[in-house]
Amino acid sequence: MSSPKKPSSSLQEKAGISPPEIINISAISQIQKNRRKQPSSQELIAGILDGNRTALSRAITLVESTNQEHAEKANEVIKGCLPNANKSIRIGITGVPGVGKSTFIEAFGTFLTQLGKKVAVLAVDPSSSLSHGSILGDKTRMEELVKDENAFIRPSASGDTLGGVARKTRESIILCEAAGYDTIIIETVGVGQSETAVHSMVDFFLLLKISGAGDELQGIKRGIMEMADAIVINKADGDNIKKANQAKLEFNRALHLFPPKKSNWQSKVTTCSAITKEGISDIWNTISDYVQMTNETGFFPEKRKEQNHFWMMETINEQLKLNFYNQPEIISQLEENKKAVQNDEISPFAAAQNLLKLYFSKSS
Amino acid sequence: MSSPKKPSSSLQEKAGISPPEIINISAISQIQKNRRKQPSSQELIAGILDGNRTALSRAITLVESTNQEHAEKANEVIKGCLPNANKSIRIGITGVPGVGKSTFIEAFGTFLTQLGKKVAVLAVDPSSSLSHGSILGDKTRMEELVKDENAFIRPSASGDTLGGVARKTRESIILCEAAGYDTIIIETVGVGQSETAVHSMVDFFLLLKISGAGDELQGIKRGIMEMADAIVINKADGDNIKKANQAKLEFNRALHLFPPKKSNWQSKVTTCSAITKEGISDIWNTISDYVQMTNETGFFPEKRKEQNHFWMMETINEQLKLNFYNQPEIISQLEENKKAVQNDEISPFAAAQNLLKLYFSKSS
Repeated sequence: MSSPKKPSSSLQEKAGISPPEIINISAISQIQKNRRKQPSSQELIAGILDGNRTALSRAITLVESTNQEHAEKANEVIKGCLPNANKSIRIGITGVPGVGKSTFIEAFGTFLTQLGKKVAVLAVDPSSSLSHGSILGDKTRMEELVKDENAFIRPSASGDTLGGVARKTRESIILCEAAGYDTIIIETVGVGQSETAVHSMVDFFLLLKISGAGDELQGIKRGIMEMADAIVINKADGDNIKKANQAKLEFNRALHLFPPKKSNWQSKVTTCSAITKEGISDIWNTISDYVQMTNETGFFPEKRKEQNHFWMMETINEQLKLNFYNQPEIISQLEENKKAVQNDEISPFAAAQNLLKLYFSKSS
Repeated sequence: MSSPKKPSSSLQEKAGISPPEIINISAISQIQKNRRKQPSSQELIAGILDGNRTALSRAITLVESTNQEHAEKANEVIKGCLPNANKSIRIGITGVPGVGKSTFIEAFGTFLTQLGKKVAVLAVDPSSSLSHGSILGDKTRMEELVKDENAFIRPSASGDTLGGVARKTRESIILCEAAGYDTIIIETVGVGQSETAVHSMVDFFLLLKISGAGDELQGIKRGIMEMADAIVINKADGDNIKKANQAKLEFNRALHLFPPKKSNWQSKVTTCSAITKEGISDIWNTISDYVQMTNETGFFPEKRKEQNHFWMMETINEQLKLNFYNQPEIISQLEENKKAVQNDEISPFAAAQNLLKLYFSKSS
């Protein structure tokens, strides 16, 4: 360091002492040592099967990682957990914001742990990466359940497409089941196609509603009502009870107009209050009835098999498309072909053929 | 010829004269000459734009052909026709067998040609190759329309997948429009996903029903009612009128329970009789109202653009899958991976990855 000149003005500062090293060598070596101590996949499997929450959390983090090494380790852990998975009831819950999903899950989840159940709450919310305010992110709304040692709450994986989030949630379900959670609740906020994704990974699909002013069925997205195994009208307390019962009548009439489901289950409509806890046990009874009936008919295991098959096919399909649309020659020609179709210069089929020829001539 | 022996019994026949040659050389050379005279694509385009039915039929045959040379010629013809296509109303008609689709189309089509319209009737029926009894195959049910010079009826292309039939019908629509047909009716029998395919190629989707005993909504496939822009209760004549009106009430109530459509069109329910012709003009008025409203809002052209885009993407997706599942190494490993998933040995995602690795390692 050169010796400081005498300052010519008070605006000039002295050089002062040198700052501490930004890089702390000993701390880094400590961190690296800790990192090296990451549990092996065998240790994680053993921990999960033992019901260890830390092992479960770490394994889910692996499932959510985009790192290739992590992904391979995650696959090993899942493979080790699969023989112990599947023994659960998977419940999907959807409803628009403001319907009281968090308080409902808090009340419903607490009711279940009091029955002796082990409850895992996961979420499918592909929007959370954008909003940074994911559902379940605000855990203060689930004060009791968060502290409950028989409950495990994990917010939605973020920064990904719906397909990616769906895969991560599906694989997390397996890990939670292997860790002994017998009731899996999958929450979705109902953005775009996320309900359909959740519907394809649960046994029972529950639509949460509140009674509004007049036309109860407005605002329900097309197709959602047909998916629901139960519609629960929340906030049926105080002045709301009469309106909630009216809404129940309307929904019941609407549901009876639908053709019967493949499961032969007649969807139920109930009211409940997450505040007074009124109606919460009815919902559990309904779900239990469903599970009993569909196990008797064989529909329950059959549906899970179909869902497995669906996700296998869906993953293949998604990856094929991803590969196609990421090829430089497709990227460069896609817009031109789209435009030609929009301007009625070529048919959609001829445009598709142009692009496919480009793609397959390159790979062969 | 040897001279006949004297018959020893009346049961013995004389040798008689020799039969004529089975192969007629001059006729064959005539046929071959005619075949060589197949019209060029330019001649076909000119013929179609001139409203020539033979040219139109021949071009549709090219579209339906699996021959590569024909396919290329078909593409040229379509390209030449596209600037003159699109000026029509495309109407999809579905309904279960027995609902009277053929007689309805006969009555409705005849009504339209009497209004001065030119009507083309096409079909999407991927089952027809199996049953050999395709819809529209039985043209005797459309006696009048078949003879009508302002109507053009073409049965469903056969021997193909739904995707194949859909492509052929889509391209036939273009050809019919270029030939001056301003009202295109696409009939489907409602097998599997064919309604969804038809819904994606028409402007207006009509569900044909008859009134039954009691619960009118039983037997409607899930999702179909939400697609319909109009529900027409057919066979509303004689003793049936009262029941048909009752059914109309029930359907109206059901439709009002659905959330509003993207088009903002409120689906209509009407009754009609293909026998007495009662109600046929109402259906046309409803369709005209729809076309006027959706043209004013811009939804009509927007939907056609979306449909074009959909078919381009759909064709790419289908071909990618076709290529994948036809690879020998995929064929040999698919079942094994499926089985491992069903037995919970690997997750659906891991199985998909196995197969994708196999596929992409081969092509790179």
